Amino acid sequence: MQFEQVTVVGVGLIGGSVGLAAKARGVAGRVVGVGRDARSLSRAVELGAVDSFTTDLADGVRGAQLVIVCTPVDRIAEVILAAAPHVRPGTLLTDAGSTKQNILWGLAGKLPEHYPYVPAHPIAGSEKAGVENATADLFEGRVTVVVHRKFGADWESTAAVGQFWSALGSRVVSMVPEDHDRVLALTSHLPHAVAAGVAGVTPPDLLGLTAGGFRDVTRVAAGDPEMWAAIFRANRGPVRDALRAFAARMAEFDRLLEADDRDGLVRWLSDAKQVRDALGR
Amino acid sequence: MQFEQVTVVGVGLIGGSVGLAAKARGVAGRVVGVGRDARSLSRAVELGAVDSFTTDLADGVRGAQLVIVCTPVDRIAEVILAAAPHVRPGTLLTDAGSTKQNILWGLAGKLPEHYPYVPAHPIAGSEKAGVENATADLFEGRVTVVVHRKFGADWESTAAVGQFWSALGSRVVSMVPEDHDRVLALTSHLPHAVAAGVAGVTPPDLLGLTAGGFRDVTRVAAGDPEMWAAIFRANRGPVRDALRAFAARMAEFDRLLEADDRDGLVRWLSDAKQVRDALGR
Repeated sequence: MQFEQVTVVGVGLIGGSVGLAAKARGVAGRVVGVGRDARSLSRAVELGAVDSFTTDLADGVRGAQLVIVCTPVDRIAEVILAAAPHVRPGTLLTDAGSTKQNILWGLAGKLPEHYPYVPAHPIAGSEKAGVENATADLFEGRVTVVVHRKFGADWESTAAVGQFWSALGSRVVSMVPEDHDRVLALTSHLPHAVAAGVAGVTPPDLLGLTAGGFRDVTRVAAGDPEMWAAIFRANRGPVRDALRAFAARMAEFDRLLEADDRDGLVRWLSDAKQVRDALGR
Repeated sequence: MQFEQVTVVGVGLIGGSVGLAAKARGVAGRVVGVGRDARSLSRAVELGAVDSFTTDLADGVRGAQLVIVCTPVDRIAEVILAAAPHVRPGTLLTDAGSTKQNILWGLAGKLPEHYPYVPAHPIAGSEKAGVENATADLFEGRVTVVVHRKFGADWESTAAVGQFWSALGSRVVSMVPEDHDRVLALTSHLPHAVAAGVAGVTPPDLLGLTAGGFRDVTRVAAGDPEMWAAIFRANRGPVRDALRAFAARMAEFDRLLEADDRDGLVRWLSDAKQVRDALGR
């Protein structure tokens, strides 16, 4: 057993899956859930995602060797600051947020030096939300980014958090916060915005005339608008850069269409196919 | 048995699936495949998609009561014109192209008046291509648009082609060519361009840091570049209109990000979610 008690703050799709995976893989002796909605937390107990729960953060983190914050990204820094005074010395803090710089900015100058908070991001999740959709294998084979915090957590804490995600089945990679946010803007936040853009521009009465392509392209647009608005706001700069790069590429496509440039269109489409084929299904 | 012989010109994913479906559902006594590549046509026979084949169009259509042209969209008009002199009186001609106006422009003034050519478009298909991926149920529950050709085919021919697609399991709807092309630009061609745009703007070394969202959004970008270049060129005007509407919507998103407008972003995302939720998974 790696940790006698793991406390999950925010027990939705990600937090619930952390609980299920940590128990299924013997990483946690018990999992305590912390949240604001007792009814949803009771449901998490029924589903086996957590063993017990509390709506009192201080209570929930006191007995933990590892605390993982799985709230929306705009609340992670405040939860960490609120939890810090109540955890035992040596307890690891980590999170599962899709953005990293905004959290570190929110903590700057407020967290004791060398406090063992290690930012992390399991690149998993989908258009589904809520503990009802949590699964023990959500992180299996997925990449988790463990973020290197300058003048931050010591190497031992960083390694331990990496081992935790590895024990949940993830492949762990290490990145600095700026790179994480720039990369995720392209690989996750841009696709989400684009999916919502296509769905948003489609008159509902035409939905009967769509096929698999439309379904696939727009699927993530069913995601939670509040959660995604928080991600986009938290990563505004890199997301706007990604939007600009994408708009330039679409403008190139439009120019090729205007010129009726067959070879140019085939090349533009082939470049995209090459990238997509490298990914596999 | 509806037709003693159905001839499929172009035996790929769509043509092969027409053959399999027509035989599985007892719509065709025998299916003859016509194409240019004897090896691929032999494979179609092995797979049961066609009963026999020829590379000679005149030979292939002579004995048919229904000829369906499943070639890329930029070749459909020429195939119809080449086939017309060789079919028996009363033989129905139809096609499965993703665009309609370009075909009718290609036929204008060249096809005998009231010639029983009925344009159609089964809204099916995927990022896969080739007869290897053909299935007997590809059209089941899908919409097929049967296009009303002004001063074109008589009502009986149009009804018979509708019945054919209906017998293959499609729900048949009727549209005029302009509406078909405008609608498909939004529901199929735009999503494809956007998928390729996202894939094309992603550096391949970041593919390991993608998740389900990226996979879904970009899936169709693996489609055949030549086939899609032909579709985009054939439907240039409506596709460029759709690109403009989409670009305006993405520009609105960027303005909301610039203004850090939380409520506006939530609204923008909620509008998209509403459309996507109406579609189902």
